[in-house]
Formats: sequence, structure tokens, C-alpha cells
Amino acid sequence: MVLPPDLETIRETAGRIRPWVHRTPVMTCASLDSWLGARIFLKCENLQKVGAFKARGAANAVHSLSEEQAAPGVATHSSGNHGQALALAARTRGIPAFVVMPRNVPAVKKAAVAGYGARVSYCEPSVQAREQALAAVVAETGATVIHPYNDYRIIAGQGTAALELLEEIPDLDAVITPVGGGGLLSGTAIAARGLNPAIRILGAEPAGADDAIRSLAAGRIIPCEHPDTLADGLRGTLGDLTFPILRDHVAQILPASERGIVEAMRLTWERTKLIIEPSAAVPLAALREAPEVCAGLRVGVILSGGNVDLDNLPWSPP
Amino acid sequence: MVLPPDLETIRETAGRIRPWVHRTPVMTCASLDSWLGARIFLKCENLQKVGAFKARGAANAVHSLSEEQAAPGVATHSSGNHGQALALAARTRGIPAFVVMPRNVPAVKKAAVAGYGARVSYCEPSVQAREQALAAVVAETGATVIHPYNDYRIIAGQGTAALELLEEIPDLDAVITPVGGGGLLSGTAIAARGLNPAIRILGAEPAGADDAIRSLAAGRIIPCEHPDTLADGLRGTLGDLTFPILRDHVAQILPASERGIVEAMRLTWERTKLIIEPSAAVPLAALREAPEVCAGLRVGVILSGGNVDLDNLPWSPP
Repeated sequence: MVLPPDLETIRETAGRIRPWVHRTPVMTCASLDSWLGARIFLKCENLQKVGAFKARGAANAVHSLSEEQAAPGVATHSSGNHGQALALAARTRGIPAFVVMPRNVPAVKKAAVAGYGARVSYCEPSVQAREQALAAVVAETGATVIHPYNDYRIIAGQGTAALELLEEIPDLDAVITPVGGGGLLSGTAIAARGLNPAIRILGAEPAGADDAIRSLAAGRIIPCEHPDTLADGLRGTLGDLTFPILRDHVAQILPASERGIVEAMRLTWERTKLIIEPSAAVPLAALREAPEVCAGLRVGVILSGGNVDLDNLPWSPP
Repeated sequence: MVLPPDLETIRETAGRIRPWVHRTPVMTCASLDSWLGARIFLKCENLQKVGAFKARGAANAVHSLSEEQAAPGVATHSSGNHGQALALAARTRGIPAFVVMPRNVPAVKKAAVAGYGARVSYCEPSVQAREQALAAVVAETGATVIHPYNDYRIIAGQGTAALELLEEIPDLDAVITPVGGGGLLSGTAIAARGLNPAIRILGAEPAGADDAIRSLAAGRIIPCEHPDTLADGLRGTLGDLTFPILRDHVAQILPASERGIVEAMRLTWERTKLIIEPSAAVPLAALREAPEVCAGLRVGVILSGGNVDLDNLPWSPP
């Protein structure tokens, strides 16, 4: 895929991945509405296969490969959810998945990637180490690298969540997603503005990893070099494919404090009975901290994932 | 309502309560399927208003009252979910709710009942103390007592969950719910067998509160006198209205160990991303401990509720 996806691409993608992903429910919660002063529609990608929207992009990438491309398998480096998603997608196609992971990701994510049948190798937790380890795997196996977000097939896949959301709730004023590398927000922007050019596209990221806010302000990609956030899914840097999409479509990216992320996560658990991971709480925390942005509006929120370590909750005693 | 509800009653009830309750989603989970050796369809009443199926029965009872009956309000004793449900239902009708609760229920449930606007009074944690306190409230206020389960309006309301489940997944071999006082299982049995006389109706209860198993074996109601289970929603005794319905319709009630309940609860949190309370894990634990009962079958499971104290999870360090 050499051109950025458009709405039509995302519709085709939705058809391609339908056998491999859940159509997740959209939920509402009166408590959240009053907490945020807006009407909130939760697109529950925490209930997606592998517990995250990443299942969509990975399914699209893997099932878009030709037989020749697919045969040696697929490979990625990932802090977790994309690794699980690629492993599952590869298994549905009957090809191997090679996943390079930093040693310091939560044990529950390591176990999950391995549980989906991937061949896992570990590296030091730096961008350089990840990319070297991945290059070595590719040299050895001939696998196709599937980047977690800087890939149009991935972006198109992630956009199918917003497509479903807007099919179900067409009259949204805004939609908001977390931003790490920008794959989810890019796909969401293309799908949502394709269906409704007037909709406001919002992003949210931890204040401790606010490279997307700074990148859009600067007009160029500023790397996320020293992320300091428990939202471990949002430590990525925008890519050269996602950056221009966000630049063209996103009205605003909002920051969220760490304390606000934990508060929003816990409130969501208590009131919606949905397990969401810290990254998925970031849009809710950001809306709470900037209530004027969506006051009184109808807001779609992509709850990005639900993979947490139940032995290490952020409100547990140490 | 002087006759036991039938399928038609439950259909009417579904229409009556529609404005006041959620139609909850039905979810599947490949991990649970393989853990249980069956095809499991989860009816997510943990995502119901007030976090439990109790919203259904309470809405039906409150909205079935005449204006004269309703005006002084409604009253109940409840270990929590029914109290919340009645409080919410009363609020939707603009009448007061008086709720008597044992002092030892989890703080989160006390706060929730009060949060829905009920007038709460506390009593000692015994059946006698509850009933005395409730009688005093009624004498003072003229409120109508709405029993948590031994009431045909409640039974009909609870049955609407199974009605929705079977409308969505008609070809189930069996359906299973937890059993405390038997209201949910009674309504489920009437709805499910009304739609499909061949379906197997199963119950599940903690081995430490197995009065329903013993009652059905004995052919008479045996009180639940010294319940020993963390499934605090299942400490009730069958009522004279629920007992005959269970006797006529239920194929089997299965016990679940305490350890099994915690294991099933945690696995459900991890794999489905749904927060369920211990009582809701009881059917899953029971199926795990008696795998021959549903091996290879298509089984509907009513996930009864999701109200837990996030500071006191059963796997947290003390």
C-alpha cells in the first residue's frame, strides 16, 4: 500500500479482517458522562481479540501479504500488544511470527505473546537495541517486518474501530484516541472524517510522553526520548507516515497527568466494569483535565486496550 | 402478580423495563472456551445498570406499582446489589427507597446505595435483625417491601436477561446462573424453557453455601444458616416462590469451591477484560470443577454482576 488509506480502503479492510477480529460493543456510562460533562461513547477495544485494537492492524497486514511474502513469516519489535496481535494474526494464517521485545515489559505481556505461538527474543529497552535485534531476526529468517504503526496496512486496520463506532453512533461531535506512534489516531481520523468531515479529531497522550503534542506544534517529528509514564503503550514516536495524517486531520492533542491517568483508569473500572490499561485511560484523563474542550458534546472514545498485570495495579499497595 | 410468570409475562416485563435498563452484550472468549471445554456465551449483566442483573427485577417491581402503592416509596433489606437496584429504580420513578443493610457489607456497596439516593439504615448481619429493621421502616413510612428474590415481579424481571440471551443465541444447549435466593435462576428457567423446552437449566452455588443443592435433594427448603463464601451475593436461602420453580425446571445445581471461584474470577478478568464479582464467577468455577456436565456444549452463562471493592481483591496481598 503506497498511498495513504482513505475511507474506501478502510471499508475494504473491515471486510478483510472481519473473520479475525471482534466487532466490539459501544458502551455508555452515566457516571462517566457526569464526571466529564459530556456524552461519552466507549468503543471497547479492550474487549478486542488480544485485548487491544492492535488485533485489527495486525490482521490486516498479515492477511494482505501475498503467499510468497507470507511464507517465511512476519516479524516485529513491540512493547506488547502489537506483538500479541501479530502473533495471533500469523497463527490465523498459519505462518510464523518473530517478536523482539524489550526485557522490561510486564511479565503478563511476555507470556501472552509466547502464548499466541510467537517465537520471542529479548533485547535491551532502547530503540536502537530493538531495531538491531529485529534486523538480525529478519536476516536469519526472511520474515516480513510489520511495523507497529508506521505502515499503511496497520493504519487502515486500526481505522476500522472508528468505522464501526460511527456506523453505530453517527452523530458524534468528536472522537478521541490515545497517541503513541499515531497509528490508531491516524486510522481513526481517516475513517471518521471520511464519514463526517465536520467531526473533531482529538488525541491524548501522557504529559510525560508528549512528543506528539510537541511534534505537531513544531511541524516536524520530535522523538519521544525519555518517556516517563505508566501508559507503557504510548512511549512511541510518531512515524513519517502517521505524522502527516495527524497534521492534516487532528484538531488538538491533549496531555494527561500521571495522577489523572490512574484516577480515570480506576473510575472506569469501578463504574463501567471494564478492565482498561493505563494507555486506554489517557483520553478520559485528558478530557477531565481540559473539560472545556468537549463540554456538552457527544464524544467517541476508543478504549484502546485492557492488558494489565493484575498483581501490579497502580493503586495496589507496593 | 399472584401466578408464577410465564414466557409471555417475561416478554411484557422486558417491554416495561426497557427504558430503565441496558440491553447487555453477549460475549465470547476463546480462552474461556478452552478452559471449560465448552462454547461459552457470556451474558454480561456486570455491565447492567448498577453493575448487576438486579436492576431488571427492581425496575419491574417499581414500575409495576400503582400510583397509590408507589407514593410512600419502596423498601428492602439487601446485601448490596438489590439495594442499589431498588434505589435506582425508585429514583427513576421519583419515589423514595428505604434500604436496610447489614453493617458488614463492603464499603463500596454501602456508598453505592447511598449514591443512588436511597435512605439507608444499618442492622446487625443476621436474618432476624434485617427483618426487624425492615418492619420498623415499613411501619414508619408505609413503604412497599420489595423482596430481593421471593417476588414474582422480581423473578420476571431477572428472566429478561435470559430472554435477551436466547433471542441473540437461540441454539444453546444449556444455561447456567448463580443461585442465592433463586430469583435469577427462576426467571432464567422460565424464559429459557419457554423459548426452548429442551434446554438444560443449571445453577451454581458456592460449596460453602450449598443450601439450594441440599434443598432440591431434600425436596424442601433448607435454610442457608452459616454461609462460608466470599461470594457475598449468594448467601440467601431459597424462597417459597423460587423453590418450586427451581424444582420443576432445574436439571442440576453444581457446587464451586472457594479456590475455584477466585481462579475463575481472575481468569475472567485477565482474558475477557470484564470485571466480575465473585458471585458471577461461581458458574464458571462450577463448570470447571464438573467438566463432564457441559463438555462440548453451547452454554449460556449469566455473568451476574461486577461490583467489587478494588482495594480488596481476593488475590491481593493482605
